[in-house]
Amino acid sequence: MQTIQSDSYPIFFDNSITQLVSFVKQGNYSRVFILTDENTGEHCLPIVKGQLDVLDNFDIIEVNAGEESKTIDFCIGIWKMLIDFGADRKALMINLGGGVITDMGGFVASTYKRGIDFVQVPTTLLSQVDASVGGKTGVDVDGIKNIIGTFTQPKAVFMHGDFLKTLPARQILSGLAEMLKHGLIVDTAYWDKLKTSDLSLPSIELVHRSVEIKNEVVTEDPHEKGIRKALNFGHTIGHAVETYSLMNDEDSLSHGEAIAIGMICEAWLSNKKIGLPDSELAEISQVLNGLYPHYKIKESTFPTLLEHMLKDKKNQNGKINCTLLKHIGQYSIDNNCTDDELCDSLRYYAGL
Amino acid sequence: MQTIQSDSYPIFFDNSITQLVSFVKQGNYSRVFILTDENTGEHCLPIVKGQLDVLDNFDIIEVNAGEESKTIDFCIGIWKMLIDFGADRKALMINLGGGVITDMGGFVASTYKRGIDFVQVPTTLLSQVDASVGGKTGVDVDGIKNIIGTFTQPKAVFMHGDFLKTLPARQILSGLAEMLKHGLIVDTAYWDKLKTSDLSLPSIELVHRSVEIKNEVVTEDPHEKGIRKALNFGHTIGHAVETYSLMNDEDSLSHGEAIAIGMICEAWLSNKKIGLPDSELAEISQVLNGLYPHYKIKESTFPTLLEHMLKDKKNQNGKINCTLLKHIGQYSIDNNCTDDELCDSLRYYAGL
Repeated sequence: MQTIQSDSYPIFFDNSITQLVSFVKQGNYSRVFILTDENTGEHCLPIVKGQLDVLDNFDIIEVNAGEESKTIDFCIGIWKMLIDFGADRKALMINLGGGVITDMGGFVASTYKRGIDFVQVPTTLLSQVDASVGGKTGVDVDGIKNIIGTFTQPKAVFMHGDFLKTLPARQILSGLAEMLKHGLIVDTAYWDKLKTSDLSLPSIELVHRSVEIKNEVVTEDPHEKGIRKALNFGHTIGHAVETYSLMNDEDSLSHGEAIAIGMICEAWLSNKKIGLPDSELAEISQVLNGLYPHYKIKESTFPTLLEHMLKDKKNQNGKINCTLLKHIGQYSIDNNCTDDELCDSLRYYAGL
Repeated sequence: MQTIQSDSYPIFFDNSITQLVSFVKQGNYSRVFILTDENTGEHCLPIVKGQLDVLDNFDIIEVNAGEESKTIDFCIGIWKMLIDFGADRKALMINLGGGVITDMGGFVASTYKRGIDFVQVPTTLLSQVDASVGGKTGVDVDGIKNIIGTFTQPKAVFMHGDFLKTLPARQILSGLAEMLKHGLIVDTAYWDKLKTSDLSLPSIELVHRSVEIKNEVVTEDPHEKGIRKALNFGHTIGHAVETYSLMNDEDSLSHGEAIAIGMICEAWLSNKKIGLPDSELAEISQVLNGLYPHYKIKESTFPTLLEHMLKDKKNQNGKINCTLLKHIGQYSIDNNCTDDELCDSLRYYAGL
């Protein structure tokens, strides 16, 4: 499968672990660190370790799995380990894991000694189609997602299809939401293809198409001034629901589950505000509500959800702007939505 | 005095506070934050507050004064305040203070929501001639200076000579060390001029020349790949002595006092290793030792100092590289120095 050339770095699909090893060898790095979490360390590292052992020397930094680890406090822990290891500016960080690892590892690397090289080896579907491409790094403070971060490109990204076989079904569904979003915002044919595919284990060809779409959008607008906001479809409401769930539910929503809810609500807003046809709203709701378990959102939580939306990085001057759809495959950015409209969209979802 | 145009931003000298006000007004910012410390709040803010009051609205974030505040923990506190204030991506941060404020405020702004605009209003001589120009931001972790940071340019820098009148003599001397360094590395005439000037309150013209020199070096090499290392003269040993003193002395050395020691030691290394003439070594030692109080460095501290030098960001592959002088006004980068040579240079200083 063709290597995708992003702005300044390649995204490998074929023989990607061999490519990783030769990248490291050619890089003449003083030290190599693999940042990973316990789950990845258990399930994914063994898949590639035989190939990585060709490298002379590397150190593994392992953190706890889960979004709870993606905090500035964990960053401090990793920085201190790098200091203790004597890591200099010619050190390399390999982020092997899901979005928590690639986002946090990217931030740690982009700020340690004002920036060392890092590469992404995403092991979840979500991180393959989303987090590992686009140069956004970030961690949470006070439960606010990605509130601290940088725009820094990795030196390369390595996609390895075999990792996906290790994932539970719920993790696959989490990544799938972003893939469906890619179809909804710019590619009707891809949306139609996804609808009829076996989605229990998306093929690497589907992953490749999602990465292609995301890459086209972000290379055109690396700092999120305009078209990149297309990717925000479903995320204004989805992020708020995700943050709420993370703070309140024992078994909190996955990113994809929350974004699926956000996409249904924002499809409803699209229908009400910018003319997304009724039939397309019905299709989106049906597909997403069929794939993802229904989540109970009470009226009493609406004020908290609105507050989270207002804190979203993309909003300015106290207004909430959503990316909506004119049609399936055609996005529209910067649609200002009132509190009433946002609440009505949540009611639409609640009534499904 | 001429505005200096750096890579992507202007450095104002004339009517700089008026310039600041019109910059803010033209920027159409959603919120304006002034980051400052208690000392600056007491001595410098009153000087400009009358002019700033023209602005409709700004919030002041005040931190404790001193290098002890320049930590990642203080950054977390500031990020949380920005979150609580509801600061969005169109917020502006005005860093009003010395190097602690400009370095830390730059880091906080460059990472909050992946980067908001910031401007520097340096109030100490050191921050005017050094920290506020060059786009380096940074904070300390575990007592290691500037180990975490980014390369991010401010939107503008505003130099205000009146602030210097509020400074104690020791703070003036601290900034002066960097000015003397600028002469030593590239401008013999400037070094000669400084030697014969009244240095108890350096004129804004002298500040202007230092900023010019620093700006020329950093715009040519923003990410410290080559010529920017010229600015590192005196800093390999100086930083180590500074870190040691910060950790061990009740009344610890100022940055400039430590760098003056570093410059004497590295002038000695220049003489031993790359032929700095004896007369020039004697001149440098005499000028610096005359301006700065002598500091006692015991043999027993050498191992700790060497360890600090090894952790310096600029070193790679376990070797210690110094920027040295061929002549006054002519630097030479990447001179590998052995532990023995470095210890001998400390002995030279101790014997003065």
